[in-house]
Amino acid sequence: ATHKLLLLPGDGIGTEVMAEVSRLIDWLNQAGVASFETEHGLVGGAAYDADKVAITDATMALAQASDAVIFGAVGGPKWDGVPYDARPEAGLLRLRKDLGLFANLRPAVCYPALADSSSLKRDVVEGLDIMIVRELTGGVYFGEPKTITDLGNGQKRAVDTQVYDTYEIERIGRVAFDLARKRRNKVTSMEKRNVMKTGVLWNEVITAVHDREYKDVQLEHQLADSGGMNLVKWPKQFDVIVTDNLFGDMLSDIAAMLTGSLGMLPSASLGEIDTKTGKRKSMYEPVHGSAPDIAGKGMANPVAMLASFGMALRYSLDMGALADKLDAAIAVVLAKGLRTADIKSEGTTVVSTSQMGEAIVAELQAL
Amino acid sequence: ATHKLLLLPGDGIGTEVMAEVSRLIDWLNQAGVASFETEHGLVGGAAYDADKVAITDATMALAQASDAVIFGAVGGPKWDGVPYDARPEAGLLRLRKDLGLFANLRPAVCYPALADSSSLKRDVVEGLDIMIVRELTGGVYFGEPKTITDLGNGQKRAVDTQVYDTYEIERIGRVAFDLARKRRNKVTSMEKRNVMKTGVLWNEVITAVHDREYKDVQLEHQLADSGGMNLVKWPKQFDVIVTDNLFGDMLSDIAAMLTGSLGMLPSASLGEIDTKTGKRKSMYEPVHGSAPDIAGKGMANPVAMLASFGMALRYSLDMGALADKLDAAIAVVLAKGLRTADIKSEGTTVVSTSQMGEAIVAELQAL
Ligand SMILES: CC(C)[C@H](C(=O)O)[C@@H](O)C(=O)O
Ligand SMILES: CC(C)[C@H](C(=O)O)[C@@H](O)C(=O)O
Repeated sequence: ATHKLLLLPGDGIGTEVMAEVSRLIDWLNQAGVASFETEHGLVGGAAYDADKVAITDATMALAQASDAVIFGAVGGPKWDGVPYDARPEAGLLRLRKDLGLFANLRPAVCYPALADSSSLKRDVVEGLDIMIVRELTGGVYFGEPKTITDLGNGQKRAVDTQVYDTYEIERIGRVAFDLARKRRNKVTSMEKRNVMKTGVLWNEVITAVHDREYKDVQLEHQLADSGGMNLVKWPKQFDVIVTDNLFGDMLSDIAAMLTGSLGMLPSASLGEIDTKTGKRKSMYEPVHGSAPDIAGKGMANPVAMLASFGMALRYSLDMGALADKLDAAIAVVLAKGLRTADIKSEGTTVVSTSQMGEAIVAELQAL
Repeated sequence: ATHKLLLLPGDGIGTEVMAEVSRLIDWLNQAGVASFETEHGLVGGAAYDADKVAITDATMALAQASDAVIFGAVGGPKWDGVPYDARPEAGLLRLRKDLGLFANLRPAVCYPALADSSSLKRDVVEGLDIMIVRELTGGVYFGEPKTITDLGNGQKRAVDTQVYDTYEIERIGRVAFDLARKRRNKVTSMEKRNVMKTGVLWNEVITAVHDREYKDVQLEHQLADSGGMNLVKWPKQFDVIVTDNLFGDMLSDIAAMLTGSLGMLPSASLGEIDTKTGKRKSMYEPVHGSAPDIAGKGMANPVAMLASFGMALRYSLDMGALADKLDAAIAVVLAKGLRTADIKSEGTTVVSTSQMGEAIVAELQAL
């Protein structure tokens, strides 16, 4: 089967790390390991520069028609002054919303070789392997009204609205519980039910889904603020964390930083499974951003991007075995001491983005 | 001058740590060092058990009439099932809102003696001294609508609303800039302007206040998610952080945990200065919560509560010199190796809540 991929490198280091995905795809096609058809599109600042929007309708159509979207990163100071609706992030948000990618999976894994690059003590993070499941198409990101009104007298009023319906919480809960069953069978749900009505409903619905369908999985509730504390204090207490769009944004970034492996962490964003075709829309992107400060220098770490492609192989393209091999190739390259600058340490060899990509593809060929 | 204080111990360890404040006040009165008149009131679960509300109008009247409110902590699983409007936290939120306590000051300081009890590496947190200035009477905590609606078909819809007006952002900005001038002269403002309209306005207003009134202070903006990351990665890059109510809730808890000194950290909540009297409403509370798991065991650390009383001396009661002495007494007791269980380490002596309180008062007498 030929798989249709849409590659959206975006801005900053997005283009550099995506080049390594292209290198990998080229080799897979050439070697006959798999068959990919790729389209390319602009998103974020790059799309704005070309078309004055953060993503065009034509690119959205390509995304809808693809088996998986592979996304780099968007944004940068260059576009600080563009109109709100055309800011780089609007392209990412439109992809998430229009493709219905409600489930964002963000593994936070501490690679043994990198345990020392965490700001946390080695024993706190060594062996860490948690999965943050973030709701991605609801909450304060998309609720209306979302406005700034001029009140006169030099006063303005800004409003954002956080909205959650029962079904939105149910479906993300199921994703979390299903994942937990394949892991260490524990889900921690985080909200602020002591302050937010959406937190009250979140807590109620997650509990109901659990009691009805997932009695075998251990469920625990934490307030998002003390949950954040616990993440910093002793992250190994967690297996799967399920939380809303905004708390998920904060908590997954913190979890990623704990591991010392920010440049290493992939993510998957998944839609609902179509009951007729058994397929779901999906997008894969690194957890890190566009890093304008190091863009264009060949310094970026391509591992998060390549590992995101690996998640696409596993979750969307039914090539789990190849995904395992890719993960192994990454592990071997790290074990050999190759490092991009962000993860360098004593006794390792610092290489460029493309050298890292080349080395991983070479290892994969050898496996 | 006689100072009128309202003591609100609340729930769980709140009552235990407040007892140490009473011990201190008794001694100060007796020794003629200062003159306090104290009232006591119920708040949180304790108020609910007595009066079926989280705080009574009578207690609110006492709070309005006091020079400072000293607050313990509220909440616990015992009250999980009470009506939303009577939940323990509602008492705290009413105090903040009705007293107009818009500015919440949360210092995150790493006590040298405790640097090793952090989950972060010693060099990352040693000497850490940052101040989180959290907006406390606006945002998603109080915005309307805040509702859960039954949509039929087993579906409910929950809504929370985040609202900020220009003047609310201006006044919290000024608090942050004023504090920075007395510290290391740097303010970092955090929001999510790439997703939230309140973030756009926040960024705009903080920048305008800075450019108009505080050009001498260094101002920097970070997105709240990467700000959270940076807090975990290298917290010493910050001096004063100013942020909204919900981000402040998350970020200040994380900052507190970094220091390894959660049981040690005080906070102050301040209202606007009355231009006629020069006075402002104020409340002082520890950053930690009611810790139901250790309540009633005499294990709680009273330092955060006593240090909060110290902040009251400094910010509301014009007794800065006494506040300095109290801080010194705490430092001496720690240097002598006395520890409550939460901060124990090898070679230190574990003492109870009241032993810790006694030791601190004794040191103060000796100073
Ligand atoms: C770029 C931004 C809109 C986005 C978000 O806030 O969701 C990013 O921080 C993320 O976590 O994917
Ligand atoms: C108890 C709760 C309502 C409160 C808050 O969310 O503000 C607490 O977490 C805090 O930080 O003071």
